[in-house]
This record gives sequence, structure tokens and C-alpha cells, in this order.
Amino acid sequence: MNPRADPADDFLLQQPWLPVCIDSCQLLVKSWFGDAEYHILLTDMQGVWEERMDAAAIERRAQELNRRLRAAVQAFFSHLREAAEPWLSGGGSGEAQMCVWRRDGAVTLKLKSELAGLPFHWEFHCGPAPVSLVCAQLVRPLLAMSRLMHRQVEELGELLARKDEEIQDYRENGATLSRERLQTDVFNKQLYTEDFIQKNLPVLRSDQSHALGFNTDLQQLYAAVTAHCPTPHKRRRPQENHGDPDWTEPGPPEPEPPAQTTVIGPDGGDPENQNPGTPVGPGGAAQVRAPAVGATRPAERQSSKLKKKKVGLFR
Amino acid sequence: MNPRADPADDFLLQQPWLPVCIDSCQLLVKSWFGDAEYHILLTDMQGVWEERMDAAAIERRAQELNRRLRAAVQAFFSHLREAAEPWLSGGGSGEAQMCVWRRDGAVTLKLKSELAGLPFHWEFHCGPAPVSLVCAQLVRPLLAMSRLMHRQVEELGELLARKDEEIQDYRENGATLSRERLQTDVFNKQLYTEDFIQKNLPVLRSDQSHALGFNTDLQQLYAAVTAHCPTPHKRRRPQENHGDPDWTEPGPPEPEPPAQTTVIGPDGGDPENQNPGTPVGPGGAAQVRAPAVGATRPAERQSSKLKKKKVGLFR
Repeated sequence: MNPRADPADDFLLQQPWLPVCIDSCQLLVKSWFGDAEYHILLTDMQGVWEERMDAAAIERRAQELNRRLRAAVQAFFSHLREAAEPWLSGGGSGEAQMCVWRRDGAVTLKLKSELAGLPFHWEFHCGPAPVSLVCAQLVRPLLAMSRLMHRQVEELGELLARKDEEIQDYRENGATLSRERLQTDVFNKQLYTEDFIQKNLPVLRSDQSHALGFNTDLQQLYAAVTAHCPTPHKRRRPQENHGDPDWTEPGPPEPEPPAQTTVIGPDGGDPENQNPGTPVGPGGAAQVRAPAVGATRPAERQSSKLKKKKVGLFR
Repeated sequence: MNPRADPADDFLLQQPWLPVCIDSCQLLVKSWFGDAEYHILLTDMQGVWEERMDAAAIERRAQELNRRLRAAVQAFFSHLREAAEPWLSGGGSGEAQMCVWRRDGAVTLKLKSELAGLPFHWEFHCGPAPVSLVCAQLVRPLLAMSRLMHRQVEELGELLARKDEEIQDYRENGATLSRERLQTDVFNKQLYTEDFIQKNLPVLRSDQSHALGFNTDLQQLYAAVTAHCPTPHKRRRPQENHGDPDWTEPGPPEPEPPAQTTVIGPDGGDPENQNPGTPVGPGGAAQVRAPAVGATRPAERQSSKLKKKKVGLFR
């Protein structure tokens, strides 16, 4: 276990990259939502971007983007999470709208939904990820997958050769087939592989669109090779400059017209309609029961999906 | 063909990563030597580094590092190339010594050899590569390899099922084996794959040392998937800051004691012993016949090696 490893990094490492299409932009996404903090990773296979935010940073941005709303960070966060997760887990849009902005080497996911009858805005400001993260989350797992499948191809070739020996023995002892169509050719690994590469390389190149090539089986193999492999990627503080000259924090949003602020309850509704049992914190902002640290609903969905679909990989 | 692509990038993209052990440090290396310019890439699978140098930059550094030597850049370059290529192509050290220095997120390969009886020093100052290069040179090719081998595993599983149908038919018609040991079990893809993953994942993890897992077959598959795939990576000027805060140009070397300078001939020998036909340029520095633009001896060696060994991938 790497002492520098961040639980969110390890959690994310063991999640497969989910193909997501936002605003007709194909991306692979990993997301982790903790207790009023999150970490998301995006790639289009040309670049890799990330954002890590803690409670304080989320509260600041929520206030900047939603001047007319006042709420405890947990209220913003739980609404943000509900609105963003369907998008980030590739499960469709739900109620919220999301669009992608690329500027100065950064990728911003702009989310718009409704909270207590008022528009709720969020922006995921994803800056270029460091190469160490790209190595941990993509390069090393993909090489491990390649090595594993290469061994498998070798082993299956040997199995085919043994089947051919068995078939050869039956034939030499005069056995015949009741149905001619069942007869197979002797497996010649060299000829087969040359033919396979020739036939499949062009298909591979022409078929880059769907899920950026990261299909369900590969996602599951990815999860298998990354299980119990903590990443050495060091955690940076939220909103820290990503060490890339063309990564600039996007400017503040246009100020909204001044208006009466609205206090949002824990479920994002009007406090008048809150369960009277809900404790109310300072400033009248209702306090919500914060989700358990490291709670990861979409991820759990994904994991259970993986468990259920395990047979998919092993079919 | 990507208009922004650099010929060196495309050339390097289509070269496999060569496992190199320098100073007991395991690296994967790609190198391109042109006409008094070079571009090298290094990775240890935790980080990726590169250096691009043109003639002017090479001449400056050659003079800084070898105060007592005076020579045309081609003379320095051809000696540098002869001394460095055995190391960078994994073919052993030759006469020169090389060691690895890591500092401030950069990797410096220090080369020491002898030129006309005097010590010749060179330093490859490799700074962090941009993520776009990591995606082009590692992420996309590795994903393509995974997709290709995944298809192959599927196809081989289907072939095995067809062999089993044929065997089943022989058996149902009363055929028997002359040698019991030839009998194979019916191929059950799900059980086989579960068993394969369980057996091979631990082996995979324990066997990271050799060639960082990039064996000859995978190198050849890499070359196959990257053929005719120009990288969109944009060329930067040599010695340009790599946009990483912890990439700092290593400081100048300790000055050597002043001494009589030595003019080196084109073959790195004493000009007195030069072929009198060799044209002599300004400043008395002998001019050498520069190698053809894009000349890539090690790469050619590698390519021909690959052609010869093609049967390795397709065995």
C-alpha cells in the first residue's frame, strides 16, 4: 500500500472509465463523490483532465455561481451530486442539463438544474491531469490488460493445437463426421494471426467513436487488473494550479441581477416544507445529514453493475 | 494525415518502446536521430519524459559540456549518435558510459565517452512530456492493442467451441482415441476466463521488472497498431519549458580547467589524420558529410529486427 496514496485515488483507480457523451462530446469519465467533496477525471484520449474539490471550495463556487441561493454546503452538494451523477456515470441526463466548454487547455462541464424553483448552476473546472495520474489511471492498467490478454491469446492457441491433435487422432482411426459442416481447419497460429491483424486493424481504426473503444468487457478487465493496485499519484489541494501554463481558472460567471435570496433546505426544497424534525443551523441554513464519508452512489451502482455483469467479461 | 504532425513524432509513434536498463534503472525508450537533431522519449511507467534538440541547441550544449573540444556540430553529433545509440536502443553500452540523474521532476541521461583522446560529455535533459504525447505514444496505442487482443480472445473462444462440436460429433459416432492423453476437456469460456484471470493476475503483478512488461510480442503489436497513425502531438521548439513547474533546466556543468582546445575532424579524429579531401569550414572546423535528413540507424536496425522477428508475433 502506497503511504502517499489518497483513498479517492485508490477508489477511482479501481473504477473503470465510463463512456459518457455530453453535448455530443465523447469522453471517458471517472468520478468520486465523498462527504461534500469530489474528484472527477475526464479523457477524450487526446488529453486527460481532473478536478478535486473539498467542502470549502465547493461552498465558494456554489455561492459565486448561485448568488440568489443561500444554503449549507451539504444542501448544495447533495443537489449537485444528484444532478451531476447521472451525467458522470453515463446514465443519461436526468433533469439537469450539462454542456462542455473547452478553453485554454482546460475542460469545463457546465451543469444547469433547478433547486427550490430557482436555477442552480455548477461548473466542473477540469484542468490538465499530471502525467503521473495518466500513467496510474491509463498507461499501467492498459499495459497490464495487454499483457494479460497476450498471455490468454497464447494459451488459447495452445488449447486449439491440442484440440487439433485430438481431432487428428480420431480421423487417423477412421472416424467420420455425420455433418460435413462441423469439420474445422487445422489451426495455424501464424497464418491465423496475420489474417486476424489484417482484417481487424482497419475495423479497429474506423470504429473509434463508440465509447472511445473502451467497451464493457475492457472496462471489466480494467477493473480486474486495477483491483488492489493503489496509485502512487499524490493528492493536490483543490483548485491548486495544475502546473500547466495553459490551465487558467475560468473567470467568474456574469453576475445575476440582485434579488431576494432563498434559503434552501437539506433536500433542496423550501425550508417551510421541511420535515420539522430537520435541525436548522446558523444563518437559518438547514443542516443536512451529510452522506457517509466516501459514499459513492454512482460508483456503487457501477460496482454492482460490474458484479452483475461479471458474466459479461467471462461469457 | 494530421497537418500539425511532426515527421519525428510520426516516426517515433511507429517505433515500439524499447526496454533499456541504464544504471540499473529500467526504462522504455524511443529515440529518433535526424540530421544534427534528435528527439528522445523515456518512460518508467510512472512518468514520461522527452527531449527534442536541433543543431543549434546541440552545438551550444556540446560546447558547454566540452570546453576543451572545438568541432563542427556534425562532428559532435555523429560522435554523440554513435555513443548514445547503443544505450538508447537497448543494445548495450558500447564504449561509452551512461548514467541516469533524476532531479526536480526531470530525468537527465549523462553520457561519457572519448573523442580524439579527450573525454566527451553529453547530457540528455529530458523534461516531463505533455499529456498529449503520453496519450499519442502510450494511451491510444495500448487501448488499440487491448481492443485488438480482446477481439482475438473472443474469436479464439469461438474457434474452440467449433472444435468441440467436431470432437463431440466424432465421439457420438463411436470414435475413440488411440492415446487417452490426447483427450481434451470441453472449453467453457466463462470458467476458463475466471480461472485464467485468477491464475495470471498475481503472476502479472509480480513480474513487472523485465522490460516493464513490454515484451517483444507486445512491442510488435504496438508497431502494428501505430502504423499509419500520425500523432496529433504538436512539435515544440527544443529546450522550450515543458510547461511543468518542476521541470527546470539542469544547471551548467562545473567549468573544466582552461586548456589548449583540440579541433576534431569529421570522424572525431585528429584533423592531421583526416582524409585531405575533407572540406574544411570556417574556423578550421572540419565539415562532415551530414547524414541524410531523418536518417535513423538504430530505428532501421529496430525495424529490420522487427521484420525478421515478425514471425515472433505471429508464431
